[in-house]
Amino acid sequence: MSSFNYTIAIDAMGGENSPDKVIEGLSLFLKDDKEIFFNIFGKETSIVEEISKHKNILPQNYKIINCESQIEDKNSVRDAIKVGKDSSMWKAIESVKNKESHLIMLVISKLLIKMMDGIDKPAIAGLWPNFKGISVVMDLGANIEFNEKNYVEFSKIGAELYRSIFDKKNPAVALLNVGSEEIKGHEELKNAFNSLSNNNNNFDFSGYIEGNHIKDGEVDVIITDGFSGNIALKTAEGTVNFITTEIKKIFSNSLFGKVCYLFSFPLFKKVKQSLDPRKYNGGIFLGLNAPVIKSHGSADSLAFFYSIKLSAKILRGGLVKRIKSNFENE
Amino acid sequence: MSSFNYTIAIDAMGGENSPDKVIEGLSLFLKDDKEIFFNIFGKETSIVEEISKHKNILPQNYKIINCESQIEDKNSVRDAIKVGKDSSMWKAIESVKNKESHLIMLVISKLLIKMMDGIDKPAIAGLWPNFKGISVVMDLGANIEFNEKNYVEFSKIGAELYRSIFDKKNPAVALLNVGSEEIKGHEELKNAFNSLSNNNNNFDFSGYIEGNHIKDGEVDVIITDGFSGNIALKTAEGTVNFITTEIKKIFSNSLFGKVCYLFSFPLFKKVKQSLDPRKYNGGIFLGLNAPVIKSHGSADSLAFFYSIKLSAKILRGGLVKRIKSNFENE
Repeated sequence: MSSFNYTIAIDAMGGENSPDKVIEGLSLFLKDDKEIFFNIFGKETSIVEEISKHKNILPQNYKIINCESQIEDKNSVRDAIKVGKDSSMWKAIESVKNKESHLIMLVISKLLIKMMDGIDKPAIAGLWPNFKGISVVMDLGANIEFNEKNYVEFSKIGAELYRSIFDKKNPAVALLNVGSEEIKGHEELKNAFNSLSNNNNNFDFSGYIEGNHIKDGEVDVIITDGFSGNIALKTAEGTVNFITTEIKKIFSNSLFGKVCYLFSFPLFKKVKQSLDPRKYNGGIFLGLNAPVIKSHGSADSLAFFYSIKLSAKILRGGLVKRIKSNFENE
Repeated sequence: MSSFNYTIAIDAMGGENSPDKVIEGLSLFLKDDKEIFFNIFGKETSIVEEISKHKNILPQNYKIINCESQIEDKNSVRDAIKVGKDSSMWKAIESVKNKESHLIMLVISKLLIKMMDGIDKPAIAGLWPNFKGISVVMDLGANIEFNEKNYVEFSKIGAELYRSIFDKKNPAVALLNVGSEEIKGHEELKNAFNSLSNNNNNFDFSGYIEGNHIKDGEVDVIITDGFSGNIALKTAEGTVNFITTEIKKIFSNSLFGKVCYLFSFPLFKKVKQSLDPRKYNGGIFLGLNAPVIKSHGSADSLAFFYSIKLSAKILRGGLVKRIKSNFENE
């Protein structure tokens, strides 16, 4: 490893805008923070060319590991496995296995999710904006069958994640449910509720939360099974898109509307910034030996910047150690 | 029954704004449509007083059934059962049992949902706005445990509901899922998928749909288990509230913002109308002998108007007959 305390492995080749937008995001990050080292995996010539455009990416902050092939979304699973071990993604993952990096930032595709179906599924956590800041919601799609133990373990992992990012001593953790405690069904959820109520948790257990209260920001960590979590996340994304599109339609349908829009432009820009999904880009894969930060394939440089920033926070917050110590104490 | 083709039972006493807002909603409805008869259940003196304020509510369109007691949200389940048979809600339900009405419109409270826990649960369908119009989403909260048969039956019921409201011959029906068909888990959902793919359905089966595509309007009926459906609905509600509150905050934070808002007021009014939750007020309880249309407790007259309008559409669309014929053919 380098002399830096923290090394992040980046697959620079995944996604539609690679490696240029990845390197641009890295340049944005290094403007404020030079204390992290980056192992950059991908086609060396393209990466060198991109880096040469950004004067603030200095040689002491990175190493390029040349990989001739890459896994793309258009590949079939069979092709991907064939390319597999020579790919930038695979080599980035190996560098964490070999302890040459502490965390991986991947542009992870549907393809990889499919491939992971065969192996033990990690939890996926996501960041969710609320009136007071940001909550962590997990699981977001990998684990469909959930039992009492999963809810309890994920509560611990989620609390540690929140703690490592936001430095709050006792995050409030709640289980996503469909309402009052009297509702029937989901025995696993009720058992988890009882178990967490009786536990000596190192977080505040807040009981159940309903989907319409995630936004309130009273709860820091929302735990749910992968099926409901995925549906909640995607429905929320769809709703944001629905509303913003309706507003655009109404403001662009008439000359008066267009004038209003121009006049109010600085305010609409603020609204856009406040809802900017790039701030919450991707997901955090936990439960592996090292955290994996996932970016959307269509992410731009600002989205990559936010992902790298989140990666740095998680590393400095000592997440992996925190999670491990939780499960050693048992 | 009256000489009218259709009779709707209304519990005029439930909710915070009863009976005044209910009667106001009825008056709005009768402005355009005088072909429906209403059995109005509740405190006769209050109802007569309210009706006297609306000149267009004529005696041939209604009968008041005096009920001295009512079930309120602040009642405990035990109190509610005690009041039970003398209440306006109970009597309205009985009038459907006795075939004196075809459909009930209730201001249904959390309390009743609790009470229903003991009995067989009907499906709850909701209306969901999309870019092209409105979809039906069900189940929204009563049935947490879902098997293959439920998915298939609810697909049929949902298609008939859509058909009766929107008069479309072959509605497109899809199952809510977390993405690609390869995702593991939820065997019931996969079995339902196969069963619906092989069936000779009287609707177009469109396969799976993800939460972020409900808004597209390509699918008319979205079928999901009561747990996921409730979470999707409430998360969407929360997201709408989050965005509109953020926009309000930004436009009211400065003098400039307030001026912009005033200037653009007609456009913001349009946005508000387009998102107006009163249009989608409440839910439709199906699978009982008669449909029950549920209004929110806090609904105002316009919300009641939309509920009555929906009730009339469902009655004229012959929903109950349609559903029955589906299950007789098997």
